[in-house]
Amino acid sequence: MTTPASRPPRPTPDPTLDANLRSWFPAANDPASDFPMQNLPFCSYLPDVTEIAESDDADIAGKLSGGNDDDDTDENGLDTPPRIGMAIGDSVLDLDMLMHAGAFDDAMLDGEPVDDDFLHDLHECLHHGGIQELVALELEFPRFLREQAQAFLRDGPVGGQQARRLRQRALTKLTDVRLTLPHTPLNYTDFYASIHHATNVGSMFRPDNPLLPNYKHVPIGYHGRASSIVPSGADIRRPRGQSNIENAPAPTFGPCKRLDYELELGVIVGGGNPLGEPIPMDKIGDYIFGLVLVNDWSARDLQAWEYQPLGPFLAKNFATSISPFIVTRDALEPFRIAGPERGPSDPQPLEYLQTTDPWGFDIQLEVLLQSSKMREAKIAPARLSKGNFKHMYWTLAQMMVHHTSNGCNLIPGDLLASGTISGPEPDSRGCLLELSWQGNGPDAKPLPRKPIELPTGEKRTFLEDGDEVIMRGWCERPGFRRIGFGECRGLVLPASV
Amino acid sequence: MTTPASRPPRPTPDPTLDANLRSWFPAANDPASDFPMQNLPFCSYLPDVTEIAESDDADIAGKLSGGNDDDDTDENGLDTPPRIGMAIGDSVLDLDMLMHAGAFDDAMLDGEPVDDDFLHDLHECLHHGGIQELVALELEFPRFLREQAQAFLRDGPVGGQQARRLRQRALTKLTDVRLTLPHTPLNYTDFYASIHHATNVGSMFRPDNPLLPNYKHVPIGYHGRASSIVPSGADIRRPRGQSNIENAPAPTFGPCKRLDYELELGVIVGGGNPLGEPIPMDKIGDYIFGLVLVNDWSARDLQAWEYQPLGPFLAKNFATSISPFIVTRDALEPFRIAGPERGPSDPQPLEYLQTTDPWGFDIQLEVLLQSSKMREAKIAPARLSKGNFKHMYWTLAQMMVHHTSNGCNLIPGDLLASGTISGPEPDSRGCLLELSWQGNGPDAKPLPRKPIELPTGEKRTFLEDGDEVIMRGWCERPGFRRIGFGECRGLVLPASV
Repeated sequence: MTTPASRPPRPTPDPTLDANLRSWFPAANDPASDFPMQNLPFCSYLPDVTEIAESDDADIAGKLSGGNDDDDTDENGLDTPPRIGMAIGDSVLDLDMLMHAGAFDDAMLDGEPVDDDFLHDLHECLHHGGIQELVALELEFPRFLREQAQAFLRDGPVGGQQARRLRQRALTKLTDVRLTLPHTPLNYTDFYASIHHATNVGSMFRPDNPLLPNYKHVPIGYHGRASSIVPSGADIRRPRGQSNIENAPAPTFGPCKRLDYELELGVIVGGGNPLGEPIPMDKIGDYIFGLVLVNDWSARDLQAWEYQPLGPFLAKNFATSISPFIVTRDALEPFRIAGPERGPSDPQPLEYLQTTDPWGFDIQLEVLLQSSKMREAKIAPARLSKGNFKHMYWTLAQMMVHHTSNGCNLIPGDLLASGTISGPEPDSRGCLLELSWQGNGPDAKPLPRKPIELPTGEKRTFLEDGDEVIMRGWCERPGFRRIGFGECRGLVLPASV
Repeated sequence: MTTPASRPPRPTPDPTLDANLRSWFPAANDPASDFPMQNLPFCSYLPDVTEIAESDDADIAGKLSGGNDDDDTDENGLDTPPRIGMAIGDSVLDLDMLMHAGAFDDAMLDGEPVDDDFLHDLHECLHHGGIQELVALELEFPRFLREQAQAFLRDGPVGGQQARRLRQRALTKLTDVRLTLPHTPLNYTDFYASIHHATNVGSMFRPDNPLLPNYKHVPIGYHGRASSIVPSGADIRRPRGQSNIENAPAPTFGPCKRLDYELELGVIVGGGNPLGEPIPMDKIGDYIFGLVLVNDWSARDLQAWEYQPLGPFLAKNFATSISPFIVTRDALEPFRIAGPERGPSDPQPLEYLQTTDPWGFDIQLEVLLQSSKMREAKIAPARLSKGNFKHMYWTLAQMMVHHTSNGCNLIPGDLLASGTISGPEPDSRGCLLELSWQGNGPDAKPLPRKPIELPTGEKRTFLEDGDEVIMRGWCERPGFRRIGFGECRGLVLPASV
C-alpha cells in the first residue's frame, strides 16, 4: 500500500497544458481530437491483434443471431499481458518502448533529476506490470510519464536515424490495437450524486416526497460488483432475473424487460489509505489518479423487485462498462470549477465534507444510441441526451472523503463512480428511466411511458436487443486545448437461451 | 478462470470421514478438538513470528489506552508471503514441507496416479502461491491435499529417521504461528437469508408488516467491501460517521453509538463462472471450496441514517472479520441436511432455485463476549447466543445460484456470506440489535432497549470499547467426529481521535 506523499503544487501556468504546444505527429494537432498532447490519458492495449476490437456490421449481425462472442468480450482470458500506452491523436504511444529506447534517461521531475530507484520502479511497472502497478505507485510516476511522453511528442528536430525510427515505431493507430480494460479494479463503489436524478427517480415512487431526508447530508453510495466491469466495446448480454412489474402474487423469471444504461463518470484511485485512517478533504486530490466514463447498465424491472431493503444487486452486477482511457488529474486541472452552489434552503455539508477548493469539474457529456435498423441503414447514432458533470450535488472529492470517513480503506485502482449524471433540463437526463418518464406519478406499474423516437421511426422506452449505447465526454475552455475521454460503447445482445 | 469439471462423486462411506481413524499425533485424537484428522481445514500462516498473534491482557490494555496497533492488525503489509497449512489438533501442518519431502510422490487421486502436470501445479501453488491460487484450481487439488495430509497423519509405523524427523518438523503449535487471512477475497457479497433476522429487524421499522413482499421469492443480497475484510484477531476500530437517531433537523458526525456484530457463515468460492454464464443448481456444489465464520460488524446508527434508498454502506465497510480456517465441503458432507421446510402458506421458490439435494447444513454456532472488566477479573467470556445454521430460509446453494442467475461472474476465492444467523428462539439471535430489542414497536428512535447483563453486572445494549466478540461454530453427529470452525474474534478499540 502506497500512501502518496503530499503532491508538490504544479507550476502555474502548467507548461504541459500550454495550448500552443505542437507535435511532429499531425493527428495530435487536430483541434477536434479528444487526445491532443495536453491530454495523454493512460490506456492498456494489445499491440498485435488479428481481430480488430471495433466490430463491423457483419460481426454484430452474427452476434445478434446467436453467435458466440466469448473470445471478443472476455478480457480476463488473454494470454499476452496488455501494454501501457497513452492515447495521442488517432494513435497510442508505447511507453515501454519509449523507456527502452532511453527516452527517460537524464530526465527531470519537479526540477530534480530522477534517480535509479525511480527508473527501476518505472521499468518494473511498464515492462512487467501494467496500470494496476502504476496506480499503486506515488502520483509522481504517472506525472513523470505524461511529461516525458509530451517531451517526446513535441515538435522539433530529430536527433538521428534511431530517433526517427522511434518516432515511427512507438505509435500505432488505435484501430490497429485492441484496447482492454485499463486495469482490473478490485473494488467498485457507485454513488448517487445527481440531485436531479435522485429527484426524478424519487418522484416515480414517492411523488409527494421525492428526496429522502438524508440526501442533502450524505453522499449516498453503495458497493457494486468489481468482477463484472468490462471495457468499452464489450458486448452486454441482456440479463435474466426475477421481476414483478404487475405486482402479481408471485414474480416471474426471464429476460429483463426494462434494460437501461446510466451515464456516469468515475474516479480511478491512485495510492490508497490504510484501514482505519480516513483521508481528510485537504489531501483528497493526491488520491485522484484520473477519470473514466462509466455505463452502469441497469435492469429496472429486476431492480424494482429486489432493491428493498438492501439496495440494487442483480439489477446492476451483470455488467458495468468503462471507457479505456484514464484522463489524468493534471490534464483536467483547467476544468476544475467551484462545487455546485447550495440553495438558500439547502443545509451546509457537515464539516468533514466542506472545502473551498474547486472540486467541481466542467465536463460535457452526451449519450447516443444506434439500433440494428439504423446500423443496417447506415444511419449515424442518434443523440439521446446532452449534459454536464458540473450539476452534481456532491463532488467526487466529497464522495471520496465520505467513503473513507469511517476508516474504510481505498485500494489503488478502485473505481468510484458518480451515479447517473442528470442535469436540470429534460434533455440532460442520463438514463432511459428518466428520459422516457412522463413525470406524472407513481411508476411502480408499467404506466404509459413516453417513448423516444429514433430516426428510423423506431420507438424506445428501454433498450432493445441490437441497440448500441455510446457515451462521450470532453472538456472545452477558451485558451485551452480540448481534453476528451473518448467513448464508452456497449452493444446489447439477446438474453442467452 | 477455471471452470471446474464435474466432481466425481465421493465414495460412500467416505473413508476420510471414518470416525475410527487415529493419528500418531495425540492432539488430533482429542474428541473435543475442532480439528481432528477428519477435518483438516486450510489456513494461511506466518511460521516464524516474534510477536504472537493472540494478544495478552497487557497488550490489549495498551491498545485501549490509545497505543498504535497497525503492525499487528494490517495483514496487507506483510513482507513474507504466508504459507498454506491445515489445522490439526492444536497445531498447523506445513503442506509445502510435506510436498518437498516427497510425501505426495506416487500418490493416487480418485483411483488414478496423479501426473507430473498435477504435481507441478500443486508445487507452484504451495511453494510460490497461496490459497488465492489454490481456490482457482480444480477442486481435485484441495481434495488431494486433504487426503494426502490425512495419510501422513494416520497412525502407523514410521519408515525411518527421515520420516520421523518430518513428523516432528511439519507440525507447529497454532500458538506459535501468526494466522493471517486465509486469502484476500476479491469480491464480497452479503445475503439476508435468515427469515427470523429479517422478521425481527423488519418489526422494528414496520411492526405491522415486517417481511417485505419479495423476501420469500428472492434470496436478498448486496455487495460488501472486500478491501476491509480482516482475519480473526485483528482489532476493530470503532468507526465514525453520520447519524441522526433523534430524527433531528440535521445529523451529527462522530463515533458510532450503536456498534454491533453480526454472526454469519460464508462460502469461499472455488473456481468461478465466466461472465454471462449462470451456474445451474445441479452444478453448484462444484463451486463450494469451503466455509468460514464471518462477523459482519455493523454501525447501526450510521446504517439507519444512510441506508435509504441504496442499502448499507459506511455502516458495514469499516471491517468484516473472518475465521482463519476454511472448512472444506468434503469435511462438512456428513452434516448436510434438507433445506428448511416451507410452511403451507409459503410460496415455492422459482424453478431455478429449486432442488431436492440436501443443501442445508447442521452447524451449531455461538457468540460470546468478554468486556475489559471481565478480562481484568479473569472472568471467561460470557455466551450471548447459541444457534444453528439449519434455520436459514435460503440455503448457501440457493444464494450462489441466485447470484449468478443474471450472468454475474463469481471469481475464485469470493466470499459470499449468509447474513445474520438468527433462529426462532430469542436466545438464538445473531446480533445485539435483536438481542437487546424489546420487541415492542418501532425502533427508529432510541426506545428503551433491554440490556444484556454480563457476569460483572455490566450492561450491554450495543458494544463498548474493550469488548471482545468471539464466534464459534462446529458440527456434531453420532458416528462422526466433531468438525469445528475454530473461532472468529475481534476486539473493539475506541474511535481514533
